[in-house]
Amino acid sequence: MSFVYFFGSGYADGNASMKSELGGKGANLAEMTALGLPVPAGFTISTRVCLDYIKEGSSFSKELILQVESALKKTEEAMGAKFADSLNPLLVSVRSGARVSMPGMMDTVLNLGLNEITVEALSKKTENPRFAYDSYRRFIQMYSSVVKDLETHYMEDELESYKKQCGYKEDTELTASDLKELIVLFKSIYQKHIMESFPEDPYEQLWNAIGAVFKSWNCPRAKKYREIHSISNDWGTAVNICSMVYGNMGETSGTGVCFTRDPSTGENIFYGEFLINAQGEDVVAGLRTPKSLYLLEKEMPEVFVQLESVRSKLERHYQDVQDIEFTIQESKLYILQTRNAKRTTQAALKIAIDFTKEGLLTKEEAILRVNAQDLDKLLHPTLDPRAHKQIIAKGLPASPGAVSGRVVFTALEAESWAARGELVILVRDETSPEDIGGMYSSQGFLTARGGMTSHAAVVARQMGKCCIAGCSSLNISQTLKSMKVAGIEILEGDWLTLDGTTGEVMIGKVETKNAELSGDFTTFMEWAREIRTMKVRANADTPRDAQYARSFGAEGIGLCRTEHMFFEENRLPVVRQMILSKNNIERKLALDKLLPFQRDDFVGILSAMEGFEVTIRLLDPPLHEFLPHTDKDMMILAAQLGLSLDDLGQRVRSLHEANPMLGHRGCRLGISHPEIYEMQVRAILEATEICKAQGKKVYPEIMIPLVGIESELKWLRERLVKIAPHFPFGTMIEVPRAALTADKISRHADFFSFGTNDLTQTTYGFSRDDSAPFLRVYKQESILEEDPFAVIDQDGVGRLIKYACELGRQENPNIKLGICGEHGGEPSSVQFCNSLGLNYVSCSPFRIPIAMLAAAQAAVGKQMS
Amino acid sequence: MSFVYFFGSGYADGNASMKSELGGKGANLAEMTALGLPVPAGFTISTRVCLDYIKEGSSFSKELILQVESALKKTEEAMGAKFADSLNPLLVSVRSGARVSMPGMMDTVLNLGLNEITVEALSKKTENPRFAYDSYRRFIQMYSSVVKDLETHYMEDELESYKKQCGYKEDTELTASDLKELIVLFKSIYQKHIMESFPEDPYEQLWNAIGAVFKSWNCPRAKKYREIHSISNDWGTAVNICSMVYGNMGETSGTGVCFTRDPSTGENIFYGEFLINAQGEDVVAGLRTPKSLYLLEKEMPEVFVQLESVRSKLERHYQDVQDIEFTIQESKLYILQTRNAKRTTQAALKIAIDFTKEGLLTKEEAILRVNAQDLDKLLHPTLDPRAHKQIIAKGLPASPGAVSGRVVFTALEAESWAARGELVILVRDETSPEDIGGMYSSQGFLTARGGMTSHAAVVARQMGKCCIAGCSSLNISQTLKSMKVAGIEILEGDWLTLDGTTGEVMIGKVETKNAELSGDFTTFMEWAREIRTMKVRANADTPRDAQYARSFGAEGIGLCRTEHMFFEENRLPVVRQMILSKNNIERKLALDKLLPFQRDDFVGILSAMEGFEVTIRLLDPPLHEFLPHTDKDMMILAAQLGLSLDDLGQRVRSLHEANPMLGHRGCRLGISHPEIYEMQVRAILEATEICKAQGKKVYPEIMIPLVGIESELKWLRERLVKIAPHFPFGTMIEVPRAALTADKISRHADFFSFGTNDLTQTTYGFSRDDSAPFLRVYKQESILEEDPFAVIDQDGVGRLIKYACELGRQENPNIKLGICGEHGGEPSSVQFCNSLGLNYVSCSPFRIPIAMLAAAQAAVGKQMS
Repeated sequence: MSFVYFFGSGYADGNASMKSELGGKGANLAEMTALGLPVPAGFTISTRVCLDYIKEGSSFSKELILQVESALKKTEEAMGAKFADSLNPLLVSVRSGARVSMPGMMDTVLNLGLNEITVEALSKKTENPRFAYDSYRRFIQMYSSVVKDLETHYMEDELESYKKQCGYKEDTELTASDLKELIVLFKSIYQKHIMESFPEDPYEQLWNAIGAVFKSWNCPRAKKYREIHSISNDWGTAVNICSMVYGNMGETSGTGVCFTRDPSTGENIFYGEFLINAQGEDVVAGLRTPKSLYLLEKEMPEVFVQLESVRSKLERHYQDVQDIEFTIQESKLYILQTRNAKRTTQAALKIAIDFTKEGLLTKEEAILRVNAQDLDKLLHPTLDPRAHKQIIAKGLPASPGAVSGRVVFTALEAESWAARGELVILVRDETSPEDIGGMYSSQGFLTARGGMTSHAAVVARQMGKCCIAGCSSLNISQTLKSMKVAGIEILEGDWLTLDGTTGEVMIGKVETKNAELSGDFTTFMEWAREIRTMKVRANADTPRDAQYARSFGAEGIGLCRTEHMFFEENRLPVVRQMILSKNNIERKLALDKLLPFQRDDFVGILSAMEGFEVTIRLLDPPLHEFLPHTDKDMMILAAQLGLSLDDLGQRVRSLHEANPMLGHRGCRLGISHPEIYEMQVRAILEATEICKAQGKKVYPEIMIPLVGIESELKWLRERLVKIAPHFPFGTMIEVPRAALTADKISRHADFFSFGTNDLTQTTYGFSRDDSAPFLRVYKQESILEEDPFAVIDQDGVGRLIKYACELGRQENPNIKLGICGEHGGEPSSVQFCNSLGLNYVSCSPFRIPIAMLAAAQAAVGKQMS
Repeated sequence: MSFVYFFGSGYADGNASMKSELGGKGANLAEMTALGLPVPAGFTISTRVCLDYIKEGSSFSKELILQVESALKKTEEAMGAKFADSLNPLLVSVRSGARVSMPGMMDTVLNLGLNEITVEALSKKTENPRFAYDSYRRFIQMYSSVVKDLETHYMEDELESYKKQCGYKEDTELTASDLKELIVLFKSIYQKHIMESFPEDPYEQLWNAIGAVFKSWNCPRAKKYREIHSISNDWGTAVNICSMVYGNMGETSGTGVCFTRDPSTGENIFYGEFLINAQGEDVVAGLRTPKSLYLLEKEMPEVFVQLESVRSKLERHYQDVQDIEFTIQESKLYILQTRNAKRTTQAALKIAIDFTKEGLLTKEEAILRVNAQDLDKLLHPTLDPRAHKQIIAKGLPASPGAVSGRVVFTALEAESWAARGELVILVRDETSPEDIGGMYSSQGFLTARGGMTSHAAVVARQMGKCCIAGCSSLNISQTLKSMKVAGIEILEGDWLTLDGTTGEVMIGKVETKNAELSGDFTTFMEWAREIRTMKVRANADTPRDAQYARSFGAEGIGLCRTEHMFFEENRLPVVRQMILSKNNIERKLALDKLLPFQRDDFVGILSAMEGFEVTIRLLDPPLHEFLPHTDKDMMILAAQLGLSLDDLGQRVRSLHEANPMLGHRGCRLGISHPEIYEMQVRAILEATEICKAQGKKVYPEIMIPLVGIESELKWLRERLVKIAPHFPFGTMIEVPRAALTADKISRHADFFSFGTNDLTQTTYGFSRDDSAPFLRVYKQESILEEDPFAVIDQDGVGRLIKYACELGRQENPNIKLGICGEHGGEPSSVQFCNSLGLNYVSCSPFRIPIAMLAAAQAAVGKQMS
């Protein structure tokens, strides 16, 4: 049985598919070696040995020792050096490498094999005593800490005090003889604390290091990491023993990093940086400025040609752009690592398309190469990365984009400043539906309260505006028209910049870059549309939003809220008259006045979405949301309606609710005030007839909100179907009881639309307006990994949705199923919807590309599995 | 095949078990006949014929006609009279009778068989022409309406105008010759509208009447009734044809109703009323005052002896107290009907116990003879039924009992009036936890808002006080200390009476009767306790409540809320100091001051419940509930804490929540402020040690509220178990997600307690404080049959509970399961809990007897099935 896998000189025992035995790093080193790339030789001890080592109480089998010795011999041959040799010693690194990357979680020992004798050989061979002693000094430190658990500060303190004594500031000022002295000091520290002398025998060093790496699989931070990332404790880690190569052996040595294409733009150019006479760390540390890769062609033409060939070999082999680390030791090129390159979204798009055109990928494969969520970055302005910024607060990144504007504290001010041509940012404790006009006029919103699905956040995403919510460090005084934050007072008219992608609030005007959509974007979205099976609709309430949505590729409207229409300036007084009417006759009169407004809205929306379905949700919010809240507005309204302020106050108070989210709204309102829904359905009917008379093909669907009881839907449908006999009727599934009794409810529904915002609120018992303070703690304490208002909670809410789909289809096999919550534009949630076989997802217009791509990826995933 | 079932002369084709063929009435007539009781002979046409008749398009089969003729012949023989005979005619009634009683829903025809000839024979035979013509006149009216659908007003108008013409006021003034004239007039009305002459042939009359009764099965009101009561449309009705007997044939005739025992007290005495020379209607109509049954012994000794024998026969036969209708025709006794007697709760208890002692019932059978819900009436004072009452409003009957008191509008006033020895009734828009002191001091509460599970309602049931909630017609002005209702102004100090069992609000002081618990009650409850398998615990927050609960038979506490302790006068300032503390040190100091209070509370409660488990729920409400709401209180608090009013206002506002029900409360608070729960657990630990040192056996259990995520409970338990290592920990299941992920949550729980109030709120998305207005409409429109806050919604909430029990037990087979919502004291909900195999139900102290009896009934039900 093989425990040890050699790689070197163009031959490898393992390959890239053996990640479970060799770990990711070991498998890749084998793969590259077999590809004929110049990888420093070495071998990998398999993960199985790790598990045995832990189980058997830290002992190595005879068989293992034989296999390691044999692999070491092959490594020596490949490298032309000999482990523990007094003239030409082979030095190695000992590194962990699990099946999946666990960066920084487990241990590594470099320069292993050095001792009093081999350090002299290294010094001679490199003609660089300082390099040799420094390597030895570092090895002693690393070995003591990793293998013997010696706390690092003992040797670090010694180093610092030595430097102080010599008047040095930097490590680089230490001379070879300083380092020699330090080695003696370090060894005596080792002796004192470990109570044995530092091992001179390289084999002893090697076996101890291997054991230490295995043990580090179970160190607390690695265990914690696995718990968080759901990695099995039974996988174990492999150990990679690699020959050391050095880029700091003089002017014919060097080190660098290169990308097979430009990771910023995706252009097919060879891109990278290198440093002569340097180690990998030096590139990272940034003390010296690396040179651009094209200079390597001049300085080391042969090496460059070799590297070019590595570039094309690796890219073709891995079928993706590679991020490659290399070292040149005395004019010889070594490849230390390759991995898929991180890239900008723009580059990811271009690369996916170019690879497909070059025949390296199919469209289905290409679709998987772009993170759907990242498309968001292409659709909104971003901060100029070079601009200076002074961050004064941080809130929740509720709606992306970066904007600057002048601060206003009320919706009315926002409208009047904007009317004067000013860019404004609306700052509120929280917004309410009354603010809708001011919100339209603003560049972005900043609120002190509310979470990712607060009113401000939802409206912002809907409108494609920037929003930072729940920024609790703001102390806003609306009356003083000022706010205090981080000791700074900000007044109306001051400039502020918001980054809705990060949640950062900056003082002043920070430069931003506008989004530019390339032709690649269009091509890519076309491919996504060809591949996806689930439709993507938009949530849109106005003709303008509907047009936006269509331009982004929406295939219908999944949620058209009718209440936003009620808040418009010319309608609100009539709505209030309707709510406060003393009897049914007065109410009918007010509703008759509202009907033409609604009808016109519907004509506009249906026309904008011609050819597609438009799901119109009847009135949802509680009536008190439409009533004034300030004394001044109350006075105006009382005068308008000819009521005493006292009477009006009494009426308004009687509508007050302790928990409006769970109150008299949705279909409950539709049943207690059927005349409202009747007016709305009549308006839909008339709008449809107008559109048809204009020769337009329109497909309205009528949606009843907040149904939880079969008889609610039955009662309303029976009543409304008399007005509009041939229209599809359906309901939102947005309270748990609707999902639990979906079999019964589906008897009266042509479609279900999962309202996952409210369903999440009621399933968790979380108010989206009030949950920010404790959700913040929950994130900190890892009680919740994801915000359930952003990503569908598959364990809880998802279980209800699945149940509702099954029950609904069981009773009504033709039922159409969709989702219209915020989750409809979040990739993992879209994936989940696809797995349930939903007919469509519906999301904010600006998230349609994301949803479309996620749907395509889900469809491909389905085909592949 | 038999369609027709004869009964008469001591023989019957059918019996009491054949209700599905003969209907309830027919089966009982057969049973009584076979028992040898003097039932007027007749026959029943089975329900199957009804279904055929409707299906076959209103035709009768030859076979049926033959069977009816044969049964009619037997009836003639039994009665010594002949149908359609010109000298000694048999008259019959034709009545519907379905499997279950559908009172008044279907049709009946009396006196059938009368025509121009037989009416003369009846007149001669009875020597009472007026009686004969009046019977005929009534028959024509009834037949026209029932069989021919003639609208009743034609003949009624004619009758009225005839009386007017003669100057009569009452029907009784009509003479025989008047009635003869009216018969002619009625027949001509019949001729005019039906366009045929009134049928002279008794057989034609009979078959038409049978058909009409069959058809009435499908009349709209019967269909509606079946829909509401979930009665199958496929059952059909039987038709009963019975010989007419008359109690109004002179001084040797009469009619009456009797009970085999006293239905008010349950005493074993023969109880009833009768009238000489009268019909059943006369007893009901109340125009003449019936005589007490014991007078019958004097007036008709032979009949009385016969009736006594019927009494004992029927009671033994049906093993229950009977309500018997009888008629005496010319000294001959006929039994027309028997059924189980309606009775008072007190009587039901005594009867059940006496029957068991008499060997007629087993204890298990006796337990089923009392409606559990009715026990409530025994435990609370009731209005004196003879007292005059002026009802001025009606609200929801939120907590039973009848009380009078003087109106106050604030909790503070309630306390100060009560301190002066006044009885007070607290009237509020709604109550809040701050009012708790005033609520203790009041006789009852009346609120304008809130539903059956509003704060006022829950506290009232908990305290055993009367409460009427959601009385929306009240217009309360707290500042003016007055309220207006039904045009009346009521000021502070005015007397008001509440009936919490009906929801009626009365002006002034209406006399009430106190509850008296008999020895029967104690015996009965002992039997219930022997039989039930599920335990019954109480919801109790104070030592006093715990003692009450114990006196009512509680076997532990299922829910001890710790927040009520925080609201007491001497603690609230410290609680506020804790909430508003600027840092952890200040908060710790405040908590240290609270600890002894909590510890003493727990010592009291644990001691009162010695020997039983006490489930203590850690702090649940959001912190803002503890803060002042009025400007005055804010000022006092600011001064106490040395804060500016502005600063305090800012702090209070920052804690404000849009939907506190779904806000920062329960375990969310426990996680963001762990020091609060730590203090509480420490207090529980110390209290337990004190009790143990006193030699008491106490069993506290620690309950974490509002868990919806496994990691919430895990996090808290890990933290709290360090303080109290050996205590059982568990959680409420009160949000849907807890039920949906109960498998995971149960890994960290020793018990689950279903908090069905909140679970109902979140499953429906109903706020209990705001649902009254639409729940009222839902009741009216039959959208909800039952208030889900009163009776567990088995379809929705129940499905979640069942799911949680299954998931919880699957992962943790030893988990203890209970319910602590309001539903724990509602019989059908207790039954449901028993069916799920819960370990206990927990309810308000005053509902323990109800829960105990319901549990016993459920256990018997289980044995029987």
